[in-house]
Amino acid sequence: MEKRNAVVGQSGGPTSVINCSLAGVIETAAGSSAVDRVYGMRFAIEGLMEDRLVDLSDKSADLLDKLKRTPSSALGSSRHKIQDPDLPKILEILKKHEIRYFFLIGGNDTMDTIHRVERYCREQGYELFGVGIPKTVDNDLFGTDHTPGFPSAARCNILNVLQAGILARDMQRVDRYVIYQSIGRDAGWLSAAAAVARRDEAEAPHLIYLPEVVFDRERFLTDVESCISRYGWVSIVCGEGLQYADGTPVSASDTTDKFGNVEFGAMAGTSVGLNLHRMIMDRFDLRGEFQITESLIMSAMDRSVDLDRREAYECGCRAVQLATGGSSGVMVSIARSSDAPYRVGYKTAPLSEVAEKSKPMPREYINSEGNFVTEEFLEYIRPLVGETPEFAVL
Amino acid sequence: MEKRNAVVGQSGGPTSVINCSLAGVIETAAGSSAVDRVYGMRFAIEGLMEDRLVDLSDKSADLLDKLKRTPSSALGSSRHKIQDPDLPKILEILKKHEIRYFFLIGGNDTMDTIHRVERYCREQGYELFGVGIPKTVDNDLFGTDHTPGFPSAARCNILNVLQAGILARDMQRVDRYVIYQSIGRDAGWLSAAAAVARRDEAEAPHLIYLPEVVFDRERFLTDVESCISRYGWVSIVCGEGLQYADGTPVSASDTTDKFGNVEFGAMAGTSVGLNLHRMIMDRFDLRGEFQITESLIMSAMDRSVDLDRREAYECGCRAVQLATGGSSGVMVSIARSSDAPYRVGYKTAPLSEVAEKSKPMPREYINSEGNFVTEEFLEYIRPLVGETPEFAVL
Repeated sequence: MEKRNAVVGQSGGPTSVINCSLAGVIETAAGSSAVDRVYGMRFAIEGLMEDRLVDLSDKSADLLDKLKRTPSSALGSSRHKIQDPDLPKILEILKKHEIRYFFLIGGNDTMDTIHRVERYCREQGYELFGVGIPKTVDNDLFGTDHTPGFPSAARCNILNVLQAGILARDMQRVDRYVIYQSIGRDAGWLSAAAAVARRDEAEAPHLIYLPEVVFDRERFLTDVESCISRYGWVSIVCGEGLQYADGTPVSASDTTDKFGNVEFGAMAGTSVGLNLHRMIMDRFDLRGEFQITESLIMSAMDRSVDLDRREAYECGCRAVQLATGGSSGVMVSIARSSDAPYRVGYKTAPLSEVAEKSKPMPREYINSEGNFVTEEFLEYIRPLVGETPEFAVL
Repeated sequence: MEKRNAVVGQSGGPTSVINCSLAGVIETAAGSSAVDRVYGMRFAIEGLMEDRLVDLSDKSADLLDKLKRTPSSALGSSRHKIQDPDLPKILEILKKHEIRYFFLIGGNDTMDTIHRVERYCREQGYELFGVGIPKTVDNDLFGTDHTPGFPSAARCNILNVLQAGILARDMQRVDRYVIYQSIGRDAGWLSAAAAVARRDEAEAPHLIYLPEVVFDRERFLTDVESCISRYGWVSIVCGEGLQYADGTPVSASDTTDKFGNVEFGAMAGTSVGLNLHRMIMDRFDLRGEFQITESLIMSAMDRSVDLDRREAYECGCRAVQLATGGSSGVMVSIARSSDAPYRVGYKTAPLSEVAEKSKPMPREYINSEGNFVTEEFLEYIRPLVGETPEFAVL
C-alpha cells in the first residue's frame, strides 16, 4: 500500500530555537495517523536533491528533549535558491520516498522554495501539502507578529549591550565609547531590540542606528559628542546594513578590489562597527572599542527565551496539523491579540505573499531624530524578550 | 579618639566577579572590630586623589547580595599609573580620613600602586596596612594558581566558540570558516580556554593561536586548508596580541598614520581577527566570518561561574583578615592542592614580585605545532569553568 511520508528541512541562517520547530514537526508527525514516516533533509533542499534524507520517525523522547535545547540547525542548512531546472529532480525524490507532506523552516527565500515546489507538484498532478514554518533572527518576515528565533537573538543583544554598558560606564575614565554591531542587513529589529537594556536615560544604549534610516556622518558625530558631554561616555548600537544618502554602504572600505571597485562589508574585511570607530577616532581624541558578534547571537542557546522556544515548537506542531488537515501553500504565522498579558494565536499567511514581501521597522517605531526607538516599539518588544537583570548601584 | 578606617578601590579592566571581591571586603570590614568605617574610591586611585570617597559601611545585605550579581566595577575604575609626585597627595587623603587599611582589587599595575603607597607611608612614618586582591580576566598574574575573573571570562569564550561552532558546522555549505578573536594581549590563557568547547576532534575550535607563539602566515594558511579538507569547515580562535617573527603585530594595518608609522590594533581600526579573515579570503575563494567580542566577555555576569564568584568573594574577605591581622605588602593568592576533586587554599604573594613579573602560558600547555593546547592545560582549566552543555546530534 502507498505510504504517506513527510519531509522536513532547515534552511537559511540558523537561530537558537529552530531545532524546537524541528522537534515539533517530528513529534506531531510521529503521533499523527495521517503520516507514515518523517524524514529530515540534510542541508535543506540541497540535501533533498542529493537524496540525503535521514529517518527521524523513531527518535527517542530523550533525544528530542535534547534537540529542543540544541542551537542552530541540527539537520544542516543551505542557502541554495532553487531554479526551474531543479524542480523535476525534487519531484523525483519526493515520489521515490512517497512524500506527501513537505515542510521547511526558514525565511522568505525558504517560503519561495516551498511555494515553487508545491506549485510544480500540483502542475505535475502530484499531490503534495507544503507548509512553511517561520524562522529568522532578523524578524523581517511578512505576515507574522514576529518570527521564532528573533526573541532569543534580541535577548542576546540586550544582555550584551546592557552588561557591556555597565562596564563602559565604570571604565569611562579610560574608554569613552563602545560600539556594538548587530546582524540585520536590511531590517533594524535586532539592533533596535538593544533599547530594552536602557531603563534610565544615562544607561546603555544611548544611540541606535538602523538600516531603515539614511546614515549621516556629521549627525552621527554630533550625536556622539552630545552624549559624551552629557553622560561622560557613549554606547552606540548599529545594524550592519547602514547606508549613506547616495546608497553607499557605511561599511565601505577605503580600499578597492582588484577590479578597482570599492570593497565593503565583512567579505572585504571591513564592517560598519569598525568604520564608525574610525570616524570617532578621526574626529575626537578618544579611546573606545567596537564589538562584532555576527552569528554568536544566532546560536546562544544559553541566552534563549522560554517563550521563543515554546512558540518555535508550537509552529512546528501547527505546520503538521495544517498539512495533514489538507492545507497547503501557507506559512504558520503568529498573531498577537494582547501585549499585557501577552497573548498570541496561530494563523496562516499565503506563501506567495511571504516570499515576495518583507517587513522593515515601521517609521513609528523609530524616533524623529532617527537615532533611537520609540515607546511604541518598546511596547511591542518587551513581552518577547524576558526580564532583564537588575544591578546594584553604589 | 583616632579612627582606624579602611578604603577599597577597583582598578584596571573589570571582570564579571570583581564586585564579589568588593562585597567580601565590605562585609568583612563591617564585621571586624578592628575597622571603623570602610570607604570606596570612585574610579580607583584617581578618585582617591580627588577625595572622591563613598562610605560603604552601612550598605544593606540586600544591596550587597545584588552587588555579588553585578558585573564590572561598581565603584568605577581607572588605569592611572601613579607617579612619585602623586604620593604626598595620596598620604594627605589617607590621613584626612584616618585610613589605616588600604585595599585595591586589580592586576600587576594595581599591585605596584599598593606597593608604592604602602612603602611611601612607611617611609613617612604613617602606619598603613596595604593588601592586594587579585583580579584579571587575562590570568597572567604571578603568584596565584589563577585570578578571579578569569574562569568566568573563559567560560564566556567557551560558550561562544562552542555554540557558534555548532552553527558553523550546520552552515558549512555556505560559510567555511569562523574566526573568534579573544582579548588577551600578552597572554593566551583566554584564547586557550576555548579548547574546552571541543570534545571531539571534528568540533570547534580546531585551531588556537596564542601570543606566546610566533605567528607564521603560511603555516596558518596551511592549517586552515588542512582543517577545511578534513572537516569541511574550520573554527579558529586567536588572541589579540599575535606577532610575526620580527615583532610586527598581526593586527598591523596596510595604512600608516599621519606620521608615516604603520598603524595596528583596535585603535587603528584593525584587528587580528579581521586580518586573519583577509588572509583567508586573499588565498582561498571561501566565505566566512570574524567575531570580535572585546569587553563583552569581561561583563557577562549571566555566564559567570559559581566557583569564580565564590573565590572572588573569599579573596576580598581574606584581604581584610590579613590587613587587620597585621600583614601588609602582600596580595591574596589562590593555591590549588588538587584538580579532582578541585581544592584550593588561600596564601599570599609579595606585592613587589607580583608587580614585576607576569605569567604567560607555559610551553607545556601549548602543542608542538603551536596551534592548539595540550591535555595538561585542559587538566588545569577544566575544574575552573563549569560544565559545558551537551547538544543533540541527528
